[in-house]
Parts: sequence; C-alpha cells; structure tokens
Amino acid sequence: MNPIVIKVGGSEGIDLDALCADVASLVHDGVPLVLVHGGSAETNRVATQLGHAPQFVTSPSGFTSRLTDRKALEIFEMVYCGSINKGIVERLQMAGVNAVGLSGIDGRLWEGRRKKNIRVLEDGKIRVLRDSWTGTVDRVNVDLLNLLMGQGYLPVLTPPGISEDGEAINVDGDRAAARTASALGADTLMLLSNVPGLLKAFPDESSLLREVAYEDFDEAMEFAEGRMRIKMLGAKEALDGGVGRVVLGDARNGQPVRAAMDGVGTVLMGAAK
Amino acid sequence: MNPIVIKVGGSEGIDLDALCADVASLVHDGVPLVLVHGGSAETNRVATQLGHAPQFVTSPSGFTSRLTDRKALEIFEMVYCGSINKGIVERLQMAGVNAVGLSGIDGRLWEGRRKKNIRVLEDGKIRVLRDSWTGTVDRVNVDLLNLLMGQGYLPVLTPPGISEDGEAINVDGDRAAARTASALGADTLMLLSNVPGLLKAFPDESSLLREVAYEDFDEAMEFAEGRMRIKMLGAKEALDGGVGRVVLGDARNGQPVRAAMDGVGTVLMGAAK
Repeated sequence: MNPIVIKVGGSEGIDLDALCADVASLVHDGVPLVLVHGGSAETNRVATQLGHAPQFVTSPSGFTSRLTDRKALEIFEMVYCGSINKGIVERLQMAGVNAVGLSGIDGRLWEGRRKKNIRVLEDGKIRVLRDSWTGTVDRVNVDLLNLLMGQGYLPVLTPPGISEDGEAINVDGDRAAARTASALGADTLMLLSNVPGLLKAFPDESSLLREVAYEDFDEAMEFAEGRMRIKMLGAKEALDGGVGRVVLGDARNGQPVRAAMDGVGTVLMGAAK
Repeated sequence: MNPIVIKVGGSEGIDLDALCADVASLVHDGVPLVLVHGGSAETNRVATQLGHAPQFVTSPSGFTSRLTDRKALEIFEMVYCGSINKGIVERLQMAGVNAVGLSGIDGRLWEGRRKKNIRVLEDGKIRVLRDSWTGTVDRVNVDLLNLLMGQGYLPVLTPPGISEDGEAINVDGDRAAARTASALGADTLMLLSNVPGLLKAFPDESSLLREVAYEDFDEAMEFAEGRMRIKMLGAKEALDGGVGRVVLGDARNGQPVRAAMDGVGTVLMGAAK
C-alpha cells in the first residue's frame, strides 16, 4: 500500500490539534502516511520578537518567498525543527502514534542545490541578492523513510533541506512534499492550508474550484494568488512525478485529512495514462 | 565494536566546531559513535530575549536544575531541537558524516516518568512546585538507534524526553547520555563540558583529579560543584549500568574526543569485575 503524503501549512488559523487527531485515527486504521509541515506564522512571530523581522521577496516570475540570510535561516530552523516539529511529534505520541521528526538535513533527507544568488523584483526592477540560504529539493532519501516506516514509525518532515555541500537551505515545504510524494510513489498528495482550496475569486470561499483536469492546469493557475501559486507548482510537479492526485484542502478544523481523502477541496488529477 | 557515547554540554565556551571536526575524523576512522548534546547557555539567551528569563531551582539534595513550566519547556525544545541539534547535524554533514538528529520524544527514544510536582529548596525551606515539565529517562529505544547506526547514520540526540503519556519532558542530558551508554553497552561514556574535569579546588584548573576508582566515588563527589554534581551522578549511573569507564573532559578546544579517549580529564573506572 503506497503512503499518502500530507503537507500541512504553517499559516494562521491552521488547527494542528485537529490535524494530528485525524492523522492518528488514520494511522490506527492502518493507512500509511508521511506528514510534512510548515511554520511560517510562528517563525514570523519569533523572528520579530528576536529583532530580526521577516522580509519577503518576489521572484521575476511572481513567486513570493522568505528572504533568508543566515540569521533568518537559523531562526527559521529553530522554529520549524524545534517548536513546530516537536509539537506535532508530541501531539501524535500522546495519541499513540510513534512519530519521528526529521528535517531535510537529517540523513540528507531532502538534498538539492543552494541558490546563493537569487534574482528578485524590486520596484519593477530585477536585482540580485547575494548570500541567500535557499535552494531546491532534487533528491529524497527514500531509503531512510522506508527504514523508519518499515518499523512502524511515522515520519514527520520539515524544512530546511540540505545542499550538496551539507549546508542547511530553506526549501519550500509544498514542493519538498511534492518531491517526497513522487519519490515514495504516493497515490495522493494533500496540500492543506488555511483556505478551502483553489478559489476562482480569492478570497471568496464560495468560489472554490472543485476539480482541475491535468490539461486545464494552466487555466486554473490564473486564479492562484500568493502562496497558492507555489502550491499549484508543487501539485503540478507531483502529478508530473507520477502521483495520482493532489488535493488542495482546508486544515482549519474538522477532520482535515479524511475530508481531503473524500475529495473536499480542489482535486487535481494526473494526466490520463 | 561497541559505540562510544559522547555527551557535549551547552555551556559558554564549548567549541562545537572543534567537537564536530573531531567526531567526523573518528567516524572516518570507523569508530562507532552516538552524540548527545545540551544547549543551556543558548536557551538562556533566547528565553531572556523572548521575555521569559530562565529560572533555576535547587532540590533538597542540592542539585540545581532549570525551572520548567510549559513555556520554558517550549523555548528549551525550540533551542535544543531546532538551533543546537540542527547546527550540529549541519556541521557533521558538511564534514561528510551522515548525521540524523533526534530528540528523546522522537520514536519514544528516551522514555520515563514526568514529575509534575517537584520539591525545591527555597530560603532553607522545602516547597512543592506544581505543573513541572521535567522527568527521568527510564528506557532507551535501542532498536531505533541500532536501526539507524546499522545503515551508517550517526545519531545526534537531545532532550527533551517523553513521558509514558507522550508528553515532552525536560530530562537531564548527562543522565540521558548515561542511560544511553548503558543501554547500548558502550565501553566509554564521555561527558565533555567547559572545565577540564572534576576539580579538587574548583575553579582552580590545576587541581584536576585525573582518576577516580569506583570505590572512591563518594569521596570524589565531595569536590563536585554545581553542574559537576549531576555529571558525577550520571557517571555513577553509567558505571553501575555496565559502562567500562566514564571520562569527564574538556570541550573548549583542540580535539576534545581524542583527548578524552586518551584519558585526558577525569577518568572514572567501573567496579572491578
């Protein structure tokens, strides 16, 4: 049975208690899962408190991401790997699930290229930022995941990833989850956040697009705003990597994983085989 | 070949770069290792910056420890599991060692009892503090460590531990390392910190005690001050748990692990068999 890969975001409004209860109930039903999480809202809070307020940049192609200098990376790592990861592992352990939390640097789980110099759009002009601690996930250490899952552990994964030289790099969690789903041959990838899915008229939640066929992806991409653009990109990468379907779902309450399994949210289907 | 268990403290002055370089060189020589670390100085800094300055309590038997309410636990977890653990894993990965960082809650690695109510000495009187998030390590998940080591990963372990109910609990890193050394059947446990070892006249570093025979333990304990008292307790527990020798060594510079292997520091020997 191929695992389901669930990515839960770190934005305001996400209910990690509900998510972990739902994950635990599925694990007890024998569903193999891998959980990936974010932590952006909490990172912003802590970074601000520590006097290193978050900054965001926009790429020339219109994607927004965290400006990650070394100090920002270290705060990011502290919150994602320390606070959020261990908080989720604790919730799952309390619900009887033997979770193991790992970052992408542990065991070179998520390895890729560091992009030291990034191009950003500023006041309509392209500028090059140097000394960036960001990068991509090009390889997933599937052996480590299978080693743990084979012994009944539930992996709980979080950025950062690791460069070929062994440096920690800020990688996008949605795209890392997509890579992980492809590498594991997952049937389903869920990208759960604080919206019901892809909205035709953001932020009107009644404008939810329920299904996007593979050939309609570019058209649907037109509706995506902000973070949803990266989720769509991750979804496309997962489908192109052989994942059967991707569900963009809501993690604000209820049973977010079971709802997404039932197709609540925006369902993106792979190309017909 | 039984592994060496190395605990490196988190006090001011400890050189994690030197430690990791030394660990990497031993790993490349084929020496099986497990690394355990602390993070107290950095936790104190971050807690103070976040407006939750650290507080310490003294037990009726004279041991000092961090006052751990839920907020203190969460900051502790953030720094130990996020900053320090991932910083060490990154250093080792950059040196070509495939390290995997885990806390005691991951995979129930360090399981024990939560002590919700603790007795502390205050102005000469014993008081009971409630809602403490501290506890002991009674069981080590040796299977998980062997699973990882069997595939060539170096485990990098950090508090907190986990209660039987699955809650995160602040456990002492030296004693957790001692338990781990016993559980793994380690020949040697190293407790490395920012002093040369057990000093007869603390803080006079020329008063180093070079060796303590098992039968002289109680006498040597008289010289231990502050944190060294808990290290001595951990050392005793390790020796009683079958570890051949414990070295209290210096992690401020040089090659701290190789020096301790050569017996530099205070060497405590197990009871003659």
